[in-house]
Amino acid sequence: MKTILGREIPDYIEGYGRVTPFQGAFSDGGVKTRTAVKLTSVIPNDQKVLPNLEEALDKLNISEGMTISFHHHLRNGDFVLNKVMEGLAARGIKDLTVAASSIFPIHAPLVKHMENGVVTGLVANYISGPVAKAISEGKLKKPAIMQTHGGRARAIESGDLHIDVAFLAAPTADTYGNINGVYGNAACGTLGYAVSDAEYADKTVAITDNLVPYPAYPIEISQVFIDYVVLIDSIGDPKGIVSGTTKITKDPVALIIAKRAAEVIKASGLVQEGMSFQTGAGGTSLAVAAELKKIMQHEEVVGSFASGGITGYLVEMLEEGLFRTLFDVQCFDIKAIESYRDNATHQFMSASMYGNPHTKGAVVNNLDIMILGATEIDMEFNVNVTTGSNGVIMGGSGGHSDTAAGSKLAIVVTNLIKARLPIIKDKVMTITTPGESIDVVVTERGIAVNPKRVDLLEKLRMAKLPLMTIKELKLMAEKITGVPKDISTSEEIVAVVEYRDGRVIDVVRKVK
Amino acid sequence: MKTILGREIPDYIEGYGRVTPFQGAFSDGGVKTRTAVKLTSVIPNDQKVLPNLEEALDKLNISEGMTISFHHHLRNGDFVLNKVMEGLAARGIKDLTVAASSIFPIHAPLVKHMENGVVTGLVANYISGPVAKAISEGKLKKPAIMQTHGGRARAIESGDLHIDVAFLAAPTADTYGNINGVYGNAACGTLGYAVSDAEYADKTVAITDNLVPYPAYPIEISQVFIDYVVLIDSIGDPKGIVSGTTKITKDPVALIIAKRAAEVIKASGLVQEGMSFQTGAGGTSLAVAAELKKIMQHEEVVGSFASGGITGYLVEMLEEGLFRTLFDVQCFDIKAIESYRDNATHQFMSASMYGNPHTKGAVVNNLDIMILGATEIDMEFNVNVTTGSNGVIMGGSGGHSDTAAGSKLAIVVTNLIKARLPIIKDKVMTITTPGESIDVVVTERGIAVNPKRVDLLEKLRMAKLPLMTIKELKLMAEKITGVPKDISTSEEIVAVVEYRDGRVIDVVRKVK
Repeated sequence: MKTILGREIPDYIEGYGRVTPFQGAFSDGGVKTRTAVKLTSVIPNDQKVLPNLEEALDKLNISEGMTISFHHHLRNGDFVLNKVMEGLAARGIKDLTVAASSIFPIHAPLVKHMENGVVTGLVANYISGPVAKAISEGKLKKPAIMQTHGGRARAIESGDLHIDVAFLAAPTADTYGNINGVYGNAACGTLGYAVSDAEYADKTVAITDNLVPYPAYPIEISQVFIDYVVLIDSIGDPKGIVSGTTKITKDPVALIIAKRAAEVIKASGLVQEGMSFQTGAGGTSLAVAAELKKIMQHEEVVGSFASGGITGYLVEMLEEGLFRTLFDVQCFDIKAIESYRDNATHQFMSASMYGNPHTKGAVVNNLDIMILGATEIDMEFNVNVTTGSNGVIMGGSGGHSDTAAGSKLAIVVTNLIKARLPIIKDKVMTITTPGESIDVVVTERGIAVNPKRVDLLEKLRMAKLPLMTIKELKLMAEKITGVPKDISTSEEIVAVVEYRDGRVIDVVRKVK
Repeated sequence: MKTILGREIPDYIEGYGRVTPFQGAFSDGGVKTRTAVKLTSVIPNDQKVLPNLEEALDKLNISEGMTISFHHHLRNGDFVLNKVMEGLAARGIKDLTVAASSIFPIHAPLVKHMENGVVTGLVANYISGPVAKAISEGKLKKPAIMQTHGGRARAIESGDLHIDVAFLAAPTADTYGNINGVYGNAACGTLGYAVSDAEYADKTVAITDNLVPYPAYPIEISQVFIDYVVLIDSIGDPKGIVSGTTKITKDPVALIIAKRAAEVIKASGLVQEGMSFQTGAGGTSLAVAAELKKIMQHEEVVGSFASGGITGYLVEMLEEGLFRTLFDVQCFDIKAIESYRDNATHQFMSASMYGNPHTKGAVVNNLDIMILGATEIDMEFNVNVTTGSNGVIMGGSGGHSDTAAGSKLAIVVTNLIKARLPIIKDKVMTITTPGESIDVVVTERGIAVNPKRVDLLEKLRMAKLPLMTIKELKLMAEKITGVPKDISTSEEIVAVVEYRDGRVIDVVRKVK
């Protein structure tokens, strides 16, 4: 079976099931269903606080074959996933599926649980570190399922991803399960990625190290979705949760790319009253924001919103009046947390509101300009952010595919060559985001516009920007690096890459 | 068939269906289901704003037998329900069920729609004015269904009350359907009663007279739940929506009752750190708050929260540090709206979070002290707030049954005699709230404690409060007024009174 992007995918994958292949970014719309949820009603005098994690695990009755979920707001400082898995492994429970919105290097103990058969399935939007490597080496029994941030919310809400128990790391929780991420030692800001888990799991446990009297405020996730509350010593290490402040790159090549990207934005005509913008937390992405800021100031334009994971840099743009509001699904630094806590125009969004294609309209649908990264790009503008140059899993879509699909102008910013390897290929190793939703690729040596965007091509030409075809960019790099050898893989599928609508856009095979 | 309170109810009611009788305030707990929802997904470039209400009605394809819903935050200033019904009537659509969270005198045009067969069913938590009278006179084809605030949210979320189209009056809406109630000419504060409608209706329309650029802030109900947005000239008359400020009664009898109620609260031992409190917006209820305030100040107690419909008086108590937070399902006056808008500790709650018994724990479950009104009370402490002394519908539970069930101390405050009629009866005409959830009745002439509350009786005795049995109170009143004649009704059932769990606690029959 082939996807419309030409990828060969079996129509049935052991451990995954029947495959519906990707058929285009908006091929799966129309009427959809948010699934029914079973819950146990709570009456007055019922208590939710349990004395410790062990008692929670007793009550929850977790058994073989179940799916348990975690959110990733504590990022590489998260203690909760490891503690829960340790408890479950000690009980001898096997064959669990871990549905974590993202996996970081700190979750290395999962590898052991995979080897021991405690964990046989993994569903995540982003996987980095030892767990990613172990999956690529075939250590997980079933193929990992790699989703997008919006796609995960969709899967949970539709019932495609049924969660038996959601473990919700809560920087602050009250005794009745109202939780927020803005206070406490492990403060992380918004809890946007945890919302669907809380609403749709059969059972939910808030795990906190900051138990406050009822009621907590603010309330990001309500008591009506929480079964139990557990107090533990520490849910995470602040150093791994947020950076002090995210900084703009000083790398001269990256600064050139950022400047070029800003010129593309300006030439596109999208710098206008009410414009919207999103960028990542990486140094180059932030440099684009800095360049855009100058243009907005010069043209005296006020944007409607900036969105995504929010950094202090975007907070500054809000505070300087360059945007009226922010939509924040996760806070990347302390400044973002404080702003989200104190400024009402810095607004919360859940992962579903952010990017779920099967709602009555996600925030990404209103995005004008999106700055994206890439590990590889191919001749059709398909982007890989899932596997690295060695073919090993090193990331995943996160919000990449969601924002690319939603935005009017999706710009990939990248060095033409990284670590002596060209970024532009005939075929990318793994398709994360389909080329139809990528509009421009900006490198330090030239800019390539997706030929489908005839309008944009014309505008950039008028602005006399250094345009090339994607093929010309590729050849330019290959003159320097030579043509890299294809990575050799076995037939064994170690991960299934789902597009945001749940259809399979690609698979990742075991590296030989 | 009899309920456990001895009410005779048919096991099948024409136009209502099979009856499950009330079996006790907490008889229907355990595992429950939130129903599945069908929605139409929205892709980038889809527009939600329609040019006018007529085009919205075209798109919505409303047909015979459907259920359409409205919320009551615009109270007696609401223009939206009447405008929509006028449009539907003009199209010749018949046999609609109107599910409005409450009905006020301004909704008098509904009577004509009932007479013409446009509206044959009505579901509401509170009905006053001409519509209530018309129902009592048998002008509605099917029996009206009278729910509680929490029960309505339960019914919608469970699928018992399926809404085809929800019309959401929105004091502020943006072009993508994010709405709030804090800005605009028809500002009403929180939109707590509209949440379940937005989340569970097949189709939703935000109707606003304050259309703002995307994105609105704050967002009370998210774009992900809204299909269409319609701008009309005016959604409501501010004079009917909120009062300037709600005032404490100056009636000397009411002040005596309030003082007694405060003494009961004090004697109960519930005035302690972290206490919680709710009272209505009526003059006597506010007078209880004023008395309680003195006690709290004297004892230097800080409460955890006050809840419910919020008045300026409770806002003052928040601002003076007597409560840490407020939970607000609707704002009764301008001061409450401003506080809700500006003060983060003045928190939003949906009707479901407020009182739905089939969630993982409603706010009412954490209520210590609840001040309630009554039209009639019987020997078993059953309370009627549904029908008046003439047997005609004049209200309904609203949050009465929800808060009575949830609170540790539910106090009914009432004059012993009103309009020359005794309030305490052998049997109430209509049971709204079961006696098992009422703890004390406080009148100007004496206090009666529900004999089931042995503990409380003892505490009040120790405090030397003027205790009587409920029968003694009744006889005292009857000495003055005589025993009133029973109201004569026909067999015809004009309304079915559902307890918060959806079971039938009573019926209202047509008055002869």
